[in-house]
Amino acid sequence: VIKPWKVLQEMITSAWQYACSEPRNVIFSAKVGLALVIITVLMFMNIPNKAIDRYAIWAIMTVILVFEFSIGATLNKGFNRGLGTLFAGGLAMGVAELSLMTEKLELAFIISSIFIAGFCSTFMKLHPKMKHYEYGFRVFLLTYCIVLVSGYKKEEFLKTAVNRFLLISMGAAVGLLVNICIYPIWAGEDLHRSVVKNFYSVANALEGCVDEYLQYCEYDRIPSKVPGNQGLLYEGCMSAVRSTSKEATLEGFALWEPPHGRYKKFNYPWKNYVKLSGALRHCAFMVMALRGCIDSEIQAPPERRQVFSSELQRVSSEGAKVLHELAEKAKKMEKLKDGDGILLEVCKAAEELQKKIDSKSYLLINSDSWVIKKPEDLDNAGNHYDIRENENKILRIKSFSETCLNLRSVSLSKSSKEISTKKIVECLPGEGILSESTSNEQILWSSYGSPLTFEDVHNDEVSKTYESASALSLATFTSLLIEFVFRLQNLVEIFQELSEVACFKETLLT
Amino acid sequence: VIKPWKVLQEMITSAWQYACSEPRNVIFSAKVGLALVIITVLMFMNIPNKAIDRYAIWAIMTVILVFEFSIGATLNKGFNRGLGTLFAGGLAMGVAELSLMTEKLELAFIISSIFIAGFCSTFMKLHPKMKHYEYGFRVFLLTYCIVLVSGYKKEEFLKTAVNRFLLISMGAAVGLLVNICIYPIWAGEDLHRSVVKNFYSVANALEGCVDEYLQYCEYDRIPSKVPGNQGLLYEGCMSAVRSTSKEATLEGFALWEPPHGRYKKFNYPWKNYVKLSGALRHCAFMVMALRGCIDSEIQAPPERRQVFSSELQRVSSEGAKVLHELAEKAKKMEKLKDGDGILLEVCKAAEELQKKIDSKSYLLINSDSWVIKKPEDLDNAGNHYDIRENENKILRIKSFSETCLNLRSVSLSKSSKEISTKKIVECLPGEGILSESTSNEQILWSSYGSPLTFEDVHNDEVSKTYESASALSLATFTSLLIEFVFRLQNLVEIFQELSEVACFKETLLT
Repeated sequence: VIKPWKVLQEMITSAWQYACSEPRNVIFSAKVGLALVIITVLMFMNIPNKAIDRYAIWAIMTVILVFEFSIGATLNKGFNRGLGTLFAGGLAMGVAELSLMTEKLELAFIISSIFIAGFCSTFMKLHPKMKHYEYGFRVFLLTYCIVLVSGYKKEEFLKTAVNRFLLISMGAAVGLLVNICIYPIWAGEDLHRSVVKNFYSVANALEGCVDEYLQYCEYDRIPSKVPGNQGLLYEGCMSAVRSTSKEATLEGFALWEPPHGRYKKFNYPWKNYVKLSGALRHCAFMVMALRGCIDSEIQAPPERRQVFSSELQRVSSEGAKVLHELAEKAKKMEKLKDGDGILLEVCKAAEELQKKIDSKSYLLINSDSWVIKKPEDLDNAGNHYDIRENENKILRIKSFSETCLNLRSVSLSKSSKEISTKKIVECLPGEGILSESTSNEQILWSSYGSPLTFEDVHNDEVSKTYESASALSLATFTSLLIEFVFRLQNLVEIFQELSEVACFKETLLT
Repeated sequence: VIKPWKVLQEMITSAWQYACSEPRNVIFSAKVGLALVIITVLMFMNIPNKAIDRYAIWAIMTVILVFEFSIGATLNKGFNRGLGTLFAGGLAMGVAELSLMTEKLELAFIISSIFIAGFCSTFMKLHPKMKHYEYGFRVFLLTYCIVLVSGYKKEEFLKTAVNRFLLISMGAAVGLLVNICIYPIWAGEDLHRSVVKNFYSVANALEGCVDEYLQYCEYDRIPSKVPGNQGLLYEGCMSAVRSTSKEATLEGFALWEPPHGRYKKFNYPWKNYVKLSGALRHCAFMVMALRGCIDSEIQAPPERRQVFSSELQRVSSEGAKVLHELAEKAKKMEKLKDGDGILLEVCKAAEELQKKIDSKSYLLINSDSWVIKKPEDLDNAGNHYDIRENENKILRIKSFSETCLNLRSVSLSKSSKEISTKKIVECLPGEGILSESTSNEQILWSSYGSPLTFEDVHNDEVSKTYESASALSLATFTSLLIEFVFRLQNLVEIFQELSEVACFKETLLT
């Protein structure tokens, strides 16, 4: 006896939680209930009228079918339903008149006309361009069949059609009034919110992504081969990317909505919100590509990542700041204070990152196999200065940069975060280190290569060559991040366009 | 008089073309017409039966509403409708019995029960988990209201409910029979086709993308800032990425379908098709990232791209070949001939690309500002061999590699495709060139930097630093391509899993 009670209790708890998390759904449900009650009462009041009694279901059906979540969707569906009914009623009455003239062939005429109507409306409905009117075609077909079938033999075509139309109008009126007058839910508002939410998602995903990339110091990587378990932040970004069709739908509904609340302009530029969202998506693609570097089979060694740590983090935090500010402004519908000025900091940060890359680009490549002479030739070179010694120098400087790497990799393993780049640079002139490293560079180098990523590649031959790709992975990450900053500029432009067209407020000076 | 005729003619032409391009739509439309004719005839035959006459619309409505494009969708919707009607009918009859007991309060009881039903079913319907049963809830609400309203005062609750159920069953039966027996359109088949199509799209996008990247020799780049005009190939890839929800829907319907045609197993592993498609999407993300390099604001100079031309092209064509073969096998439902062997060529090609990158990695970075001493210090260095001269050497080798670049960039402008890498290497020992280039390297270098990409950046300071990012762009492109090859391996694994679970045929030896 206790168990079902417990189940019920749990169900009520979860329903309550769901209701608390989505209060709009509760209100909407109550609105549906109210509209139904109103239409039922209206029907009951007219019970004595036989005709209405018979067709009462039309009114109820209309309320149930037309009552959509947002006002735009309700208006759109109501329009479809109205137009479909009107067209079908008119056509059916015309066909009915014609069928009376055919006398003996009446039934055949009606049936073939139903076939033709069914064929044509379905065929048109399936056309991609007619997607938005799908419901209208359905209603058309339904009304057409019903008028013909119920009117047959009783010559009640007109009565059926008129009654149906009147009752549908009644249902639509009740539905619309209740939906619009009581706590309306606007598709435009939802679109606006969705765009703002996407800004926050992308900003968080960006920060999370760069942080994760830098925190990745351990070798316990879980290769997430199949898309899926990629964390909440990534999900937010993915949902921003996937929101295309959702936003297109919302825009479609928003265009049906009359001016309301904060959107007082006629022909409100909902299009520009979608455009802004498109530009944001363009940025989100970059974040996804960054995320791809984390999921990649080819990974840069953590030590090298740390070298660029502070610059990467600064770009990501400044980039996220820009996104957050744009989101804030979009939410409050305010213009930007000083135009492009918003980008100043992030551009500076990107510049610094770029400078760091330039100064440390030897970390991003594997100089191990530059097309210069091989170490075996070293012995042939003398100490005197001649043309052939040039090769020797090349080799030395090459091994030299590798020595830097090795030095750093050792110092990092001791105190992982403190990278004194200057120290390494100061080490450069030490000839003693150079000669030492020349002998054991091959061993050091190979141990330095990324040992973490290639368990998956069973083919040893292949893996050996692929190892060197790992260094380039860091280059990929940084240049994707810089590309992201570039795309931010475009995003700001489009935001400014929107803020002009949609007449956003000027920001008040604080 | 002629004009409307012409418009009509054009309409017919376009309708005919549309019909030819989508013959399935024509057949489906005819099926809808046929089903409607059958149900109409059945209704007409029963006209004398008053009850049926009155509720005839239910049967017609059921046919129209349940008749979906694919069998799975029809069965799913029919099930929803049936269950919704059954539940609502039962509940409504129970409530009606109760209402009779309340005597005076009958009306109030009925109306409040309608409110509660409307509230609860809408509230549940909006829950994300109930998305698939949305239609069922709608039908439930509709039936509930109709049974109560039409039965009220006439104590005909049972009659209404039973009639409604019988007529709906009749409509559903006609709809199902026509839809399944005549040229059935299976969602599973569509899912299979969609997956195969995505393989071809991604393969073509990959090839197109790499080709476009390499053909990009002119400076007339149109910056496609806003996502959009990115070509048909990209669209194919994007549609593969976007197909998530479409495929999830098709899978949902396919699970409802009985074994048929080539899919004879019970519990056919449609899940694995979706999984395969997910792995393909993982590859497609890489293609999109490659595509992102083309749309990027930061572009690598065309001359440098040409250096890796043949290797890049080979990887792309081998990768596309793998995708094509997998598509072919998936289409024919055959197992792979020799397991992982399919990857051999593409791995080799990637290996070669990697080798080339290793040997030419100086092309991928801008060594202009390595943290080594500045050129001004050059004069201080003597010709004799001491410790300080080491810096000098560093500087020389640096200017040296740049000389290579400059040489090549000149030779490329003469005969753009013939890059004799050996020649450049042979040039290396020439001390004379070295000393010349040391003096004018700065000028050459800056002219060599990508002049094409920074019109957009109005801030000169920023653009100057960002120039050096362009060289890294090529590194990004190549490492993304190599990552693509890695992801291919995972794709092949998942294909093999599918071919096992779905009992694909063994490939016949030819």
